[in-house]
Amino acid sequence: MKDLIIIGAGPAGFTAAIYSLRAQLDVLMLEKTGPGGQIALSDVIENYPGYSEISGVELMQKFEEQAKKFGLVMESAEVTAVEDHGEKKIVKTTSGDHECKAVIICSGAKPRKLGVPGEQEFTGRGVSYCATCDAFFFKGKDVASVGGGDTAVKESLFLSKMVNRVEVVHRRDALRAEKIIQEKAFASPAINFNWDSVVTSINGENSVESVTLKNVKDDSEKELPVQGVFVFVGILPNTDFINIVEKDEGGFIKANDKMETSVPGLFVAGDARVTPLRQVATAVGDAAIAATSAEAYIESLE
Amino acid sequence: MKDLIIIGAGPAGFTAAIYSLRAQLDVLMLEKTGPGGQIALSDVIENYPGYSEISGVELMQKFEEQAKKFGLVMESAEVTAVEDHGEKKIVKTTSGDHECKAVIICSGAKPRKLGVPGEQEFTGRGVSYCATCDAFFFKGKDVASVGGGDTAVKESLFLSKMVNRVEVVHRRDALRAEKIIQEKAFASPAINFNWDSVVTSINGENSVESVTLKNVKDDSEKELPVQGVFVFVGILPNTDFINIVEKDEGGFIKANDKMETSVPGLFVAGDARVTPLRQVATAVGDAAIAATSAEAYIESLE
Repeated sequence: MKDLIIIGAGPAGFTAAIYSLRAQLDVLMLEKTGPGGQIALSDVIENYPGYSEISGVELMQKFEEQAKKFGLVMESAEVTAVEDHGEKKIVKTTSGDHECKAVIICSGAKPRKLGVPGEQEFTGRGVSYCATCDAFFFKGKDVASVGGGDTAVKESLFLSKMVNRVEVVHRRDALRAEKIIQEKAFASPAINFNWDSVVTSINGENSVESVTLKNVKDDSEKELPVQGVFVFVGILPNTDFINIVEKDEGGFIKANDKMETSVPGLFVAGDARVTPLRQVATAVGDAAIAATSAEAYIESLE
Repeated sequence: MKDLIIIGAGPAGFTAAIYSLRAQLDVLMLEKTGPGGQIALSDVIENYPGYSEISGVELMQKFEEQAKKFGLVMESAEVTAVEDHGEKKIVKTTSGDHECKAVIICSGAKPRKLGVPGEQEFTGRGVSYCATCDAFFFKGKDVASVGGGDTAVKESLFLSKMVNRVEVVHRRDALRAEKIIQEKAFASPAINFNWDSVVTSINGENSVESVTLKNVKDDSEKELPVQGVFVFVGILPNTDFINIVEKDEGGFIKANDKMETSVPGLFVAGDARVTPLRQVATAVGDAAIAATSAEAYIESLE
């Protein structure tokens, strides 16, 4: 029986590993698709303190090496369920079951994609899902901002202070955001609204040059010249495999400030949890706490 | 009038600066004693994700350079008070007053010192105030652990799994920790108790070799050979200058998960706040959130 199983090999997972291994716990990390998580898709990160400029892949390699220095054991497996048997937890995977005393869920989240040509190719270099992360790279440029919800409009406002022009693209003819936020967006001279519209493709040679919009009412098309596309149509947590902890309506796992979930011995860190911000910096903070809490929990069992 | 004033130039302060400057806020950082904060006293840090081994000074230089890349303006000044005038805050300092819309308090905390010869000299290389940070460096060695409170005993238990022997030094003849924690400590063969004792000096040539203990009842002295000293006699937040926000009984500032204090427009991040863990990793997570919340707050004013 392991002390601790960490589910997911992104920023939160590796940080949880560094902390728990340095606390002398017997740890196993399970990862489905390969190390790095969502952040590995970022070409340039400027806001992880300590690195002025680094790629997501490179940063995650550093995290991984550091965890391995303390003896991290990783296994490639997809977790299908976590069972709570009091002092024993069973983590079920596609390649067998593992028993442990505690689990830290670091399975992350992914942005909902548009699913249009060009999106995948330009992700991390023209297509972004996070204004806090990437707005700064588009200073003085024109960008499309897709979505009409609360987050989308807030992020568009954030963008509007930095870029030359924000072209909001929304499939309906009204926003779903809070009234006060809507009014600010309507008042901004840097924001233009493209109603009843969806993006059908993201175009360009080496970088994003335009998006093609389709009007959903009359099926007309137009091309909008932009150098960037921000997509704000939702975030999906990777938490389907676990149904024994409390989640919010979006599927994010609830935790207190010790990163304890509703089930004793199950902890969560990073993008998979209910949190006001999803960044490498916050994942790292969460995970240090989760590992410390897990260590204290395991200590309390003995 | 500035958008934002950041008080303190440690891990939290620099991270708040990176995030708020990238969000195009007009920011001023105030620092009393020079950049770096408590962490600058650490010779080797192994648990900040991204750096397998780095000194505190070097890591803080990297944070500072990164913030300066985005245009950080720093001023050397001691904050004496923060006044809340609704949409305007006044930060009073020894070298004049500053007006701003929002404040992030990143003033940190410091461990209570023993105040004995050898303590200062060996801080960061033999004398530590944090088992989570430094226990790993003392694998297989003998260490003294000073204090009898809840934290002290928990930290001693944590240490006992890694080091050869923990010599607990406590000025009274009983622990003040929770009963269950006490029982575990008494049951551990790796923990020895030195009752009614205080450390009067920490001795060694280039590294810690022993501590001198004095028995407070009979004034007798003895020398205890150890290679490290962990001091757990309290943490003091640097929050005396602000008395308009809610604090706990220890003087730490209370905040919600958005790092909002009890006063709108005043935020807190890092060691100065009520938090289960005080690490560079957690300061960084807090500060990213605080800066994002401050940006949203300032946006809401306009």
